[in-house]
Amino acid sequence: MTMILRNATLATMTAGYGLVEGGAVVIEGDRIVWAGPEAEAPPAAGERIDLGGRLVTPGLVDCHTHLVFAGDRAREFEMRLEGATYEEVARAGGGILSTVRATRAASEDDLLAGALPRIDQMLAQGVTCIEVKSGYGLDIETELRMLRAARRIAQHRPVRVLTTFLGAHALPPEYAGRHDDYIAECVLPALAAAHAEGLVDAVDGFCEGIAFSPAQIARVFAAARELGLPVKLHAEQLSNLHGAALAARHGALSADHLEYLDEDGVRAMAAAGTVAVILPGAFYTLRETQMPPIDLLRRHGVPMAVATDCNPGSSPMTSLPLAMNMACTLFRLTPEEALAGATIHAARALGLTDCGRIAPGCRADLAVWEAAHPAELAYRLGATPLHARIFGGRRDA
Amino acid sequence: MTMILRNATLATMTAGYGLVEGGAVVIEGDRIVWAGPEAEAPPAAGERIDLGGRLVTPGLVDCHTHLVFAGDRAREFEMRLEGATYEEVARAGGGILSTVRATRAASEDDLLAGALPRIDQMLAQGVTCIEVKSGYGLDIETELRMLRAARRIAQHRPVRVLTTFLGAHALPPEYAGRHDDYIAECVLPALAAAHAEGLVDAVDGFCEGIAFSPAQIARVFAAARELGLPVKLHAEQLSNLHGAALAARHGALSADHLEYLDEDGVRAMAAAGTVAVILPGAFYTLRETQMPPIDLLRRHGVPMAVATDCNPGSSPMTSLPLAMNMACTLFRLTPEEALAGATIHAARALGLTDCGRIAPGCRADLAVWEAAHPAELAYRLGATPLHARIFGGRRDA
Ligand SMILES: [Zn+2]
Ligand SMILES: [Zn+2]
Repeated sequence: MTMILRNATLATMTAGYGLVEGGAVVIEGDRIVWAGPEAEAPPAAGERIDLGGRLVTPGLVDCHTHLVFAGDRAREFEMRLEGATYEEVARAGGGILSTVRATRAASEDDLLAGALPRIDQMLAQGVTCIEVKSGYGLDIETELRMLRAARRIAQHRPVRVLTTFLGAHALPPEYAGRHDDYIAECVLPALAAAHAEGLVDAVDGFCEGIAFSPAQIARVFAAARELGLPVKLHAEQLSNLHGAALAARHGALSADHLEYLDEDGVRAMAAAGTVAVILPGAFYTLRETQMPPIDLLRRHGVPMAVATDCNPGSSPMTSLPLAMNMACTLFRLTPEEALAGATIHAARALGLTDCGRIAPGCRADLAVWEAAHPAELAYRLGATPLHARIFGGRRDA
Repeated sequence: MTMILRNATLATMTAGYGLVEGGAVVIEGDRIVWAGPEAEAPPAAGERIDLGGRLVTPGLVDCHTHLVFAGDRAREFEMRLEGATYEEVARAGGGILSTVRATRAASEDDLLAGALPRIDQMLAQGVTCIEVKSGYGLDIETELRMLRAARRIAQHRPVRVLTTFLGAHALPPEYAGRHDDYIAECVLPALAAAHAEGLVDAVDGFCEGIAFSPAQIARVFAAARELGLPVKLHAEQLSNLHGAALAARHGALSADHLEYLDEDGVRAMAAAGTVAVILPGAFYTLRETQMPPIDLLRRHGVPMAVATDCNPGSSPMTSLPLAMNMACTLFRLTPEEALAGATIHAARALGLTDCGRIAPGCRADLAVWEAAHPAELAYRLGATPLHARIFGGRRDA
């Protein structure tokens, strides 16, 4: 099966935008075999689709989400705005532990059913690849159940799903004050079990005063290394514990959030090839004021990805283009950096080299937009002009 | 034709949310004839639609937009983020005058065709009534053409359109330094001609150092009064020129933006019954830091509306639910205030009493949501769980 997309404006993302006006993409099966100016296209027989000059980008890659969870925290959002203190919210059953309780009580089918509407919103805005983390179970069985539900998304929707084990996300109440016991008795056994079941593409943690110390994270990373699994880390979101440098020492794929990252951390990331994942949705929702050091990251050549951080507490966001707009408006990324952050650099943050670009050999995961120039994607606010999505060489209905 | 919506959660917006669980709405033709608990519904024969417990709100009302324009400013957004100064942007043909140039060059059909995709995005997010301003023509013919194009939207889409004359939006280059001449030679004649053609529901202006003085605005308001037209005003967005008090003295329907509003202005609005229209999209996009005085508005009982301010420069936003989220997150409105701001108070800002509520006698303009509680509408970020829209008693396909 050969498909030829023609009369398109391509943003190949192979070097900056990698713009090609009057471009064509030749697809065989689920792969791109050629992309470039239509006038130079090799002869090919197959289905020819005239895109009327529309913009084609790589399918968007959302490289940091907590998309699988149960429960609803809209009322908690409301209580806070009505003036409730964090204590009052907690007493009313709010906060991350409310998500943990609901997730523990949910079956695998429940978790899947809850995730599908969120995935549908993502896909409607051009996403073709998504990372999903565990981390609301905080016990062995529920962590496994979250990962199984996340993997099943790909059986129900045309999307590629990568799963990340995030047992070291928060301390469950039954381990209050016993972080090391929780790591030893729950996180490490859950990781081993999840890996044995083939459920783990990467291992993540939350390195923060309110979560786990660098020494505790290092234990998790050591276990990941023994299993041959890549690592990533929620680092420097609320304070500087030098988590990014720790992650870089472990060859991490990415360090994420990074509002309090310093230049030593940036240097360590640059040396290790660790991607900086920028999460403006949480910054916006939490009304933070400390911005990640974008200029330092640029100066040291650290690739920047942009993701939704979709989660029910600090970023109930299911629009990657909105995250791109926020990365530009709040953090002063350029639209080109934002689009690279949602394609080629996001793929790299997941250890993938076969997506996030329009180039021969890559998967034919593409987004076609009602737009003439890629700057429009980050410019528009609250609307996503998706015309069509192509996943594995097949066009969505 | 009678239609009965049943098994619904109603947010009638008649007193706060006005929540009714297990509610029903009886619609005859294009009007609501009854709404309340299903158990108390009067007997009625007609099409019965079981909403499965879904949330029903009034159709959303976007009471401040500049939706009709030509041209594209995505590249200007990009240039600024790439470090261009305002001068460099202006030299490259950017800024509001680029929109004016493109709008003057566009036919009425062009303007309509450009507006329809934006309207479609609005409708997909639950809007049933929208205000559209002129103000990118700045000459008599183009101001009229913008209003005609805006009115024609309602012939092509199931939406109610109110048009506002905004000749005093910006000074066109041919009148540089001659604000009063522009008012006399262009704004007032254009207003008279537009009104003679039946194109004006309200008269607006931009009272600001970079636009028009209170004395100049007062001339426009005096002309509106002679024509029997209600007024509203862009006031106190970037500085305090006491525009809100000026508007209140003229019995304005609304004063809009209001970041620099002081307590005297709030008092004047309260006394006049002038609605405060909050526009967080522009605040966010321009990275403003001065917030409108929400607590003062609350304390004095000034109704607050929330709108997108959809325009190509300072708020390229086509999602009213996103404006609601920003009103909560950035300005600390409660989700209930935000929803009232996009329904009952938005209707009032347009001088309408027959929409924005679910009550007998109101138009049957409703939004049905995949949501259980109205707080979800402002809580979600970048996704709008619209299930169906009902406009004039007819359900959208
Ligand atoms: Zn996260
Ligand atoms: Zn405006």
